[in-house]
Amino acid sequence: MSVGFVSIIGAGPGDPDLWTVRATRRIAEADVVFYDALTDAAGLAGRTSARCFSVGKRAGERGVCQQTIHELLIRTARRGKHVVRLKSGDPFVFGRGAEESIALAAAGIPFEVIPGVSTAIGAPALAGIPVTHRGVASGLLVVSGHRPEILRGVLSGVRPGYLTVVVLMGIARRPDVVASLVECGWAPETPTAIVTAASTTAQEVWTGRLDTLVSAECGLLPGVIVVGDVVGVREIVGKFAGQKAATVSVRHGGS
Amino acid sequence: MSVGFVSIIGAGPGDPDLWTVRATRRIAEADVVFYDALTDAAGLAGRTSARCFSVGKRAGERGVCQQTIHELLIRTARRGKHVVRLKSGDPFVFGRGAEESIALAAAGIPFEVIPGVSTAIGAPALAGIPVTHRGVASGLLVVSGHRPEILRGVLSGVRPGYLTVVVLMGIARRPDVVASLVECGWAPETPTAIVTAASTTAQEVWTGRLDTLVSAECGLLPGVIVVGDVVGVREIVGKFAGQKAATVSVRHGGS
Repeated sequence: MSVGFVSIIGAGPGDPDLWTVRATRRIAEADVVFYDALTDAAGLAGRTSARCFSVGKRAGERGVCQQTIHELLIRTARRGKHVVRLKSGDPFVFGRGAEESIALAAAGIPFEVIPGVSTAIGAPALAGIPVTHRGVASGLLVVSGHRPEILRGVLSGVRPGYLTVVVLMGIARRPDVVASLVECGWAPETPTAIVTAASTTAQEVWTGRLDTLVSAECGLLPGVIVVGDVVGVREIVGKFAGQKAATVSVRHGGS
Repeated sequence: MSVGFVSIIGAGPGDPDLWTVRATRRIAEADVVFYDALTDAAGLAGRTSARCFSVGKRAGERGVCQQTIHELLIRTARRGKHVVRLKSGDPFVFGRGAEESIALAAAGIPFEVIPGVSTAIGAPALAGIPVTHRGVASGLLVVSGHRPEILRGVLSGVRPGYLTVVVLMGIARRPDVVASLVECGWAPETPTAIVTAASTTAQEVWTGRLDTLVSAECGLLPGVIVVGDVVGVREIVGKFAGQKAATVSVRHGGS
């Protein structure tokens, strides 16, 4: 049997309505889907007849190790299957998509990467927060809280006044985020937000200041931290943007 | 007649196949579409029966001014229409989506923001370049070359060793990019790429070093600059990832 094919796909923040058209078609046509913990397993139901396997882990849990994921992708493709590797957000933004691409290339397996809506940008947007805004933020820094020493290393060079800082997987690292930015001169009152479970029915948004970030109550759901004056835009537009689903359902009968 | 509704939508890098499912539905159902110069007008044909108007400008050209765009959106919505404002990439990444959102909120027009695949992440990905990669780049800085003094201000604080730098609208500002990063200690031989017209049939990729960026030959098409060791990943995976359309068309009879 001829060798198969792997599609490494970004699923976006969560809602399958934010999958790309190409991603939706690939998922529908796939033989096998390996998906992350953060992707919406319920979203796969009815959208594909593929066999679907979870290979993800949430913070603090043990999951399938990365090497095993590589082997699963390669072995399944070698059986002639069209394999979809479905990842939360974008595969190349802390998604280990690069490692999987390199493993597939080394094994001679044809593959593609389909970018998705990055949670770093999409989650704030769905909360009414633009990561850039003329005269307010002229750039965007995206970092991961996964390894605190790297988080501190990145943030220790970020001067205030230009950028919005977005921290993925950083809920547990909030003290490091605050300390690093304040040390660099960021004002303690800088507007700050946490967006959890973006695009899902469980989406919640906390807004406050950099110096109240650590004491923000937020659950165990995955969340994105946004630091910068752009958070203030939510007060102006959030009540509209945040109600979009309800508003539109009145007009169109669906979200 | 009741007030209409505005959907501010990110179209992604170009190919309508990278629109989200929600974006595709809204565009199909819209009465009127106002689109940017960088979005694919041909992509709208056959995907909507809306009246479609270009309100964009390319670098150096005069276009419809931002205030006029606000007035068009508001006036059309007030006639009870479902208006789509279609933007290249993501509306909140240098897309002036925040300004339009604020104008709509001030006018009391209901609206939504549908995030899209940001060109800052999607264009490198489609060239086989991951903006983050374990052990290589632990974060991502996105800046615009639109205003050189801001570009230099942002880049002057970015130490090497952690981040990938992505510059949008920066082809004409390459000397500023190189000078700012080298002043911060970035090595002249840092791998660097330009991806133009990502996701379209005209997509081209140049790769070289930071100190050869300025002399890179690239056309007048919009391009994304990527600086960082992640550019080297393209050598490993690019020949696979870059051939995805052709490879997949053999298997599925479509892109």
